[in-house]
Amino acid sequence: MAGVTNYPNASRDDLKAQYVGKLLRDVDAPAAIIDVHVARRNCQLMLDAADALGVLFRSHVKTHKTTELTKFQVGEKSDPIRLVVSTLAEAEQLQPFLEECKANGRSTDLIYGLPVRPSCFKRLAALGKALGKSSISVLVDSPDIIPFLSRYRELTSHAVGVLVKLDTGNNRAGIAPDSQQFKDLLAALHAAEHDGNNAGIVLRGFYSHLGHSYSSDSTNEAMDYLAQEIERCTIGAAYAATVGKYAGRRFLITVGATPTTTAAQNLTSPDTLDPTTKRVRELVDRSKAAYDIELHAGAYVTLDMQQLAAHARPTASNLSFDDIAITVLAEVGSLYPHRAQPEALAACGSLCLGREACRSYPGWGVVTPWLEDGEGTRTAETGWYDPEGERKGWIMDRISQEHGILGWHGARDNVRPLKVGEKIRIWPNHCCICIAGFSYVLVVDSSLEGAEKDRVQDVWFSWRGW
Amino acid sequence: MAGVTNYPNASRDDLKAQYVGKLLRDVDAPAAIIDVHVARRNCQLMLDAADALGVLFRSHVKTHKTTELTKFQVGEKSDPIRLVVSTLAEAEQLQPFLEECKANGRSTDLIYGLPVRPSCFKRLAALGKALGKSSISVLVDSPDIIPFLSRYRELTSHAVGVLVKLDTGNNRAGIAPDSQQFKDLLAALHAAEHDGNNAGIVLRGFYSHLGHSYSSDSTNEAMDYLAQEIERCTIGAAYAATVGKYAGRRFLITVGATPTTTAAQNLTSPDTLDPTTKRVRELVDRSKAAYDIELHAGAYVTLDMQQLAAHARPTASNLSFDDIAITVLAEVGSLYPHRAQPEALAACGSLCLGREACRSYPGWGVVTPWLEDGEGTRTAETGWYDPEGERKGWIMDRISQEHGILGWHGARDNVRPLKVGEKIRIWPNHCCICIAGFSYVLVVDSSLEGAEKDRVQDVWFSWRGW
Repeated sequence: MAGVTNYPNASRDDLKAQYVGKLLRDVDAPAAIIDVHVARRNCQLMLDAADALGVLFRSHVKTHKTTELTKFQVGEKSDPIRLVVSTLAEAEQLQPFLEECKANGRSTDLIYGLPVRPSCFKRLAALGKALGKSSISVLVDSPDIIPFLSRYRELTSHAVGVLVKLDTGNNRAGIAPDSQQFKDLLAALHAAEHDGNNAGIVLRGFYSHLGHSYSSDSTNEAMDYLAQEIERCTIGAAYAATVGKYAGRRFLITVGATPTTTAAQNLTSPDTLDPTTKRVRELVDRSKAAYDIELHAGAYVTLDMQQLAAHARPTASNLSFDDIAITVLAEVGSLYPHRAQPEALAACGSLCLGREACRSYPGWGVVTPWLEDGEGTRTAETGWYDPEGERKGWIMDRISQEHGILGWHGARDNVRPLKVGEKIRIWPNHCCICIAGFSYVLVVDSSLEGAEKDRVQDVWFSWRGW
Repeated sequence: MAGVTNYPNASRDDLKAQYVGKLLRDVDAPAAIIDVHVARRNCQLMLDAADALGVLFRSHVKTHKTTELTKFQVGEKSDPIRLVVSTLAEAEQLQPFLEECKANGRSTDLIYGLPVRPSCFKRLAALGKALGKSSISVLVDSPDIIPFLSRYRELTSHAVGVLVKLDTGNNRAGIAPDSQQFKDLLAALHAAEHDGNNAGIVLRGFYSHLGHSYSSDSTNEAMDYLAQEIERCTIGAAYAATVGKYAGRRFLITVGATPTTTAAQNLTSPDTLDPTTKRVRELVDRSKAAYDIELHAGAYVTLDMQQLAAHARPTASNLSFDDIAITVLAEVGSLYPHRAQPEALAACGSLCLGREACRSYPGWGVVTPWLEDGEGTRTAETGWYDPEGERKGWIMDRISQEHGILGWHGARDNVRPLKVGEKIRIWPNHCCICIAGFSYVLVVDSSLEGAEKDRVQDVWFSWRGW
C-alpha cells in the first residue's frame, strides 16, 4: 500500500487539539473548510434523486478523498456500497471503512476508474482479498490489457468485474460504442471470459463519464448530455447482447458527471410539463427495463464555481452559493487601494485554489461575504461577486504559486474594506483540485447557531498519493 | 511549526528501501524524477555567473522545497547563506540544515518572500531565535503592517530586516518606486526605525520579482527586464537616500526571476559586442558602486518547458532539453490508435503535471525520448516533440485530475509505438507546480554509465503545507 504509507497523515489527535473548538478567524490560513451541513444535504439530495428515479448511484470519491464524505455519499442503506476511485490509494485509504462495513454485512462494489494497467493487479487483488468476492471491477477500453486480466484471479481466486469504458462524446478515455474497435473488444472479452482457460473475468456492463458536460450552461443542456450518455451506452449494450453467451445478460450501464447527475434531480418531479425532462425520464424508464441504470458523480458533494456555472441542478432546488460546501480560508497580506481598481494580496495561491478557469467569470476564486468577526451570522453588506448578477465584489484576479491578487469589481466608493491580517473565505472554481492542495480539511457546521457556525467541529484527512 | 508537523513526511528509511537501487522502469508511477547531475550543474552555473558579475545571489527554494537542492543552490562558500522562501513551512523545514551551518560558523540571511502579515511573527521569531541575529528579513509594501513589525523584536530581542517590495512592472505585489505611496511608506518606516520607541527594524533595501519576465522570448528581452528591475529599484533607493538618517546607508537591491537571472549568465562573457549585453553590464557595474546588487531565482535549478520557451540562458550555453532536471514518470494506461491522430492515455493528470500552460506549444507536457528498456542510453528513434523544431512526437494534449490524453503529432506512419503498462517520462511545463504534486522525489544521476543512469540513487522529501 505504497500510496498510504508514502503519504502519511499527521496525528489526528494533534490536528484535533490544534483546531477543534477554534473560531475560523483564529485558525492559521490557508486552510480548506468543509461545511458538513451543506455537504450532507448535497449527498442526501443525490441519494433521494436516484431513489426517486429508481436507478442506482455510485459515489466517486476523487473530489474530496476523505472517508467521512464518502460515508455521506454512500448513505446507510445501499448494499453493496458502490464506489468509483481514480487512484489505488483512494481505495486503500477506504479499506478500513469498507472492512468494517463487510463485518456488518454490507459488501463493496468498487470500480477502479482509469483503464486498468498491468501494474494495478497486485494492489487490486490485495483489496479484493480483504473485501471479498465481486468487490472489485475494472475498466477496459483496449484489447492490449486483456492478456493481463487473469492476474486478478490468480491472486484472489475470484473473478474481476469488467466494464467497457465508452467514449460517449467526451474524447478522453474510452471507445465509441458503434465502432469496429468496440466490436473487436467485445469479441476479445467474450473469448477471454468463455473460451478454454478462461481469464476469470465477468463483463458487467458499460461505463461512461461525460466530463464535457461541465460545459453545459442549463439544466436542460445537462439533461441532454445525460440522455446522450445513456443512449450511446445502450447502443453498446444492445450490440453486446448479440455476442455469443452475452445474450440475455442484464448489463449495467453507469453514466454521469456532476452536471448531468445533479440535473437528474429534475427528473424526479412527477408532474413536469417540460419536454426535455419528459423525454429524458421516458428514456431512463425505457432503459431500466433492459439494463441496470446507474449514475455516478463526485463533485456534487461540495460543488464549486464551475458547477454553479453549469446550472446543473433544477431551478426548483435553488442551486446557489449556499450549496457550495467548500471554501478556502485565506489571510489578507497587503492592500493596494491606490491601483486603478482597489487590489489586495492574499497569502493563498494556486497550490490552494488550483489554476482552474471558470467560464462564468475571469477569476480564480470568489471572496464570500463571510466576515471574520461576523461570528457566523453577520456578512459583508456589499454582498459578493456573482458572475450572473451585478459582478460587484472581490475576486481572485491573478494567481501565483503561493499568493494571489484580489481585485475589487464595482464602484470604488462602495468597496468592501479589507485589512491586513484579516481572514477571508474564497469559493474555489474547481473543488477537486482545490481540496487536493491540502492534506486535511477543517469542518464547520452552518446548521449551528450564531458563532458556533464559525467553530471548527472536526478535522478530516484528505489523502494524497497514488 | 504547524507547517511541519501537520504535513509529515513518510519514513525516509522506508522510502529508500522501496526505491533506491531500482531502475525507473520498475518504479511505481506517477513519480517525480530529479536528475541530480543536471540540477547540480544548473546551480553551479548560477553561482559562477553571480561571482563573475560580482553580485550576490539569493536562492529561492519554493520551486523544489527540498533540503538537498537548497544545498546545491547555496553552494559551500557564501556566508551568510542567502535564502528566500514563499511559506513559513519552507523556512521551518530548512531549520535543521541552517542550524547545522550555524554550528559550523556559517550564518543565515533569510527573507520571507510574501508581504509579511501579523500572524507571521511568532513563527518568524522562533526561527530567528534559532538562527541568530540578522537572520530574518521581511517584505513590506503597505503602511498597515508597520505597527506590527515590533513584534519580532519583542519576541527575539533582535531587529528584523525590512525590504520594501517594489512593483517594477509585474503588477502583482509591491508598490511603484516613483509613487506617492512609496514616499509615504519610506517616511513611515523611517519613523518606525528611528523615532522614539523604535520598532526594532532595519531597512535593508528593495526587493523586486519580475514574474512577467517569464513572457520574454529571447535572452536580450530577458536582459532588458533585468535592466528594468535594477533601474526601477535604484529609483527607489536613490529616493530613500534623501530621507533623514537613511542618507549614506548602503542599500541592498535584490532582483530577479529565473529568465532574468539565467540571462545574466550572458553578462559574464568578457568580450561581447552585443549592445544589450554591454548596456546591461554597464548598468550592473554602475549600480554596484552605490548598492549591493543581488539576484534571486528558483526555477533555474530544474528548469521546465516554460523556461525553455523563455530562451533565458545565453546561446553560448546551449540551453536545451538536456538542462531540464525534472521529469514525471508516468504509466501508459491505454492506446487509441484508431483516432484521427493516434492517442494514448497516461495515468498521470493535473495533480502531477499542474494545469500550467506553455506559450511555445498547446500541451501540458512533452514526452521525452527516454525508453524504459533503453537503460539510460538508447532513446526513441523518433526523437521528441520540440516546440521550436519539427513538432513531431507525443505531448500531453488534454489533462484531467488523475489522467491525461497523449496525442501523437507528426505523420501517423512514423508514430513512436507505446504499449499499455509502459513507463514514459514527461517534461512538465512548470516545475514549481509539478513538484508540489509530490511529497518526495526520486533521484537519478545522468552522469553515471549505461543502466546506472536509470537507477534510483536517493529519495528526497519535497515539503508541503504552509
